[in-house]
Amino acid sequence: MFDKVLEAKKRLEGYANRTPVITSRTLNELINANVFLKCENFQRVGAFKFRGAFNAISKLPDKEKSRGVITYSSGNHAQAVSLVGKLLGVKTTIVMPDNAPVIKRLATAGYGAEIVEYNPATQQREEIAGQIQEKFGYTLIPPFDHPDVIAGQGTAALELAEEIRLDYILAPCGGGGLLSGTAIAAKGVNSSCKVIGIEPEVADDAVRSFRTKVLHTVKNPPTIADGTRTASLGKITFPLVLRYVDDMQTVTEKAIIEAVKFLFFRMKIVVEPSGALGIAALLSGAVKPEGKVGVIISGGNIDAATMNMILNS
Amino acid sequence: MFDKVLEAKKRLEGYANRTPVITSRTLNELINANVFLKCENFQRVGAFKFRGAFNAISKLPDKEKSRGVITYSSGNHAQAVSLVGKLLGVKTTIVMPDNAPVIKRLATAGYGAEIVEYNPATQQREEIAGQIQEKFGYTLIPPFDHPDVIAGQGTAALELAEEIRLDYILAPCGGGGLLSGTAIAAKGVNSSCKVIGIEPEVADDAVRSFRTKVLHTVKNPPTIADGTRTASLGKITFPLVLRYVDDMQTVTEKAIIEAVKFLFFRMKIVVEPSGALGIAALLSGAVKPEGKVGVIISGGNIDAATMNMILNS
Repeated sequence: MFDKVLEAKKRLEGYANRTPVITSRTLNELINANVFLKCENFQRVGAFKFRGAFNAISKLPDKEKSRGVITYSSGNHAQAVSLVGKLLGVKTTIVMPDNAPVIKRLATAGYGAEIVEYNPATQQREEIAGQIQEKFGYTLIPPFDHPDVIAGQGTAALELAEEIRLDYILAPCGGGGLLSGTAIAAKGVNSSCKVIGIEPEVADDAVRSFRTKVLHTVKNPPTIADGTRTASLGKITFPLVLRYVDDMQTVTEKAIIEAVKFLFFRMKIVVEPSGALGIAALLSGAVKPEGKVGVIISGGNIDAATMNMILNS
Repeated sequence: MFDKVLEAKKRLEGYANRTPVITSRTLNELINANVFLKCENFQRVGAFKFRGAFNAISKLPDKEKSRGVITYSSGNHAQAVSLVGKLLGVKTTIVMPDNAPVIKRLATAGYGAEIVEYNPATQQREEIAGQIQEKFGYTLIPPFDHPDVIAGQGTAALELAEEIRLDYILAPCGGGGLLSGTAIAAKGVNSSCKVIGIEPEVADDAVRSFRTKVLHTVKNPPTIADGTRTASLGKITFPLVLRYVDDMQTVTEKAIIEAVKFLFFRMKIVVEPSGALGIAALLSGAVKPEGKVGVIISGGNIDAATMNMILNS
């Protein structure tokens, strides 16, 4: 799989941002380690999702490109597919829950995708997407359970690991696309780098799956980290997480909020709750790594109401 | 004066952050130029003020260092003097208005400075500082009207201008320390670079002073950009602004708010209102430069209430 990540990196050159790696004296002193934040909130569309979507869509045969692609997503993956479609001249259709954050829906529509809404309480997004896909012959670009999407997501960790010889790397876990890509990339560069996945405590399906080696699911978990509300790991990501990830830990909602505030007030960067999971794990002590610690800051798409709530709490 | 900025740069090495320069495709497309943001919100204490304070205090003779320093400031300069005092083992006293943003007062006290509060409606900060200074023999480190402070502030523009050959540079203007330092540095690297100072419309004393060549003042102007509420340019900064600055323009409060929002939602960085003046000038069309345009993002210290108000407007 590591060669797929290396290939993805070449494919992304000139399209994805090589995002900055930032550090903080305060953070290093607080947790007694050297922390390197890989800032995918500065990626195009404001999240790492651009990497996987670009890698998967740009690899499609011309015939499939000319018919168009479809996906289902509550947010960042939708924006990513939509922007990649615009850049590559591929028609895009997005199946999106009708309660998705407004900022994410507007941004997705802004890139030119056709949006099909559904009610997540009564409908299955995979079903709706499947019906449209069949009718129009679109190619499905799933949000995480796809080898090319996973390889693309791994390029963020690849850039970081090539820049800094890491002892640890922390990544958030929703469906496991970013986490498994990160693990493959980090271990590919340096096999002794420990990979730790972080999940909200109230959406701990992946942690339970990891510990029991049996796939667990969760239904619409009440976490502020909307990027991790995915029901479960995927058919492809679950075995990859079992194989490449060293440990998984959970963080509380309070720790996530404190992490977003720390990143805002002390580091002056805008990070969405899902993107702050690694920092939440470090600041709360859920993970206590030593040496050089990479953290994937996965995205920065947060709406005004959510940020106001966080800043006031 | 340019040699003083070059000397300050050497003095700051290993102490100040060499702050990142960031760009945005969206911003470049919107204003049809190549914009380079020099991010002093990522500077120590969250603002460019660290540069001037460090340069001025580190240059003092040992005798003055051992007695201590004093300053008056509503915020970022106070934090900067306080942190520099801690780093260099110099006792610091800060005269601060009793209505200063809470986050700034807490941060200043956190570095170990002694804080003396005053009521800005009835008392003059210079007078109070003068009395304490006389009694204890402290050295005054004024917030802007001092050659070593000005030279230190100029190092941000120096780093940017050495990295990118700029056609224009925009900097906010309060007391003129950052603006005159920026102008000296930018012209020193490339004499054809145009320097433009930006001020809030409701606090336009410096613009009027610049245009009439007579010093104008303003009293507690009702601008959200608290870093620019200074009464007037100084005895040293006024002639420097007249000599080195090419033009000055104002921006509305609405434009400042829109700029903070743009920086938050599109660029994912936390910028205080004063720090967003250059972007406000570009986005509102108050300034329409071409080619390579540097913008000094002066700081990122904003409290929750102010950011909530901005995000909701």
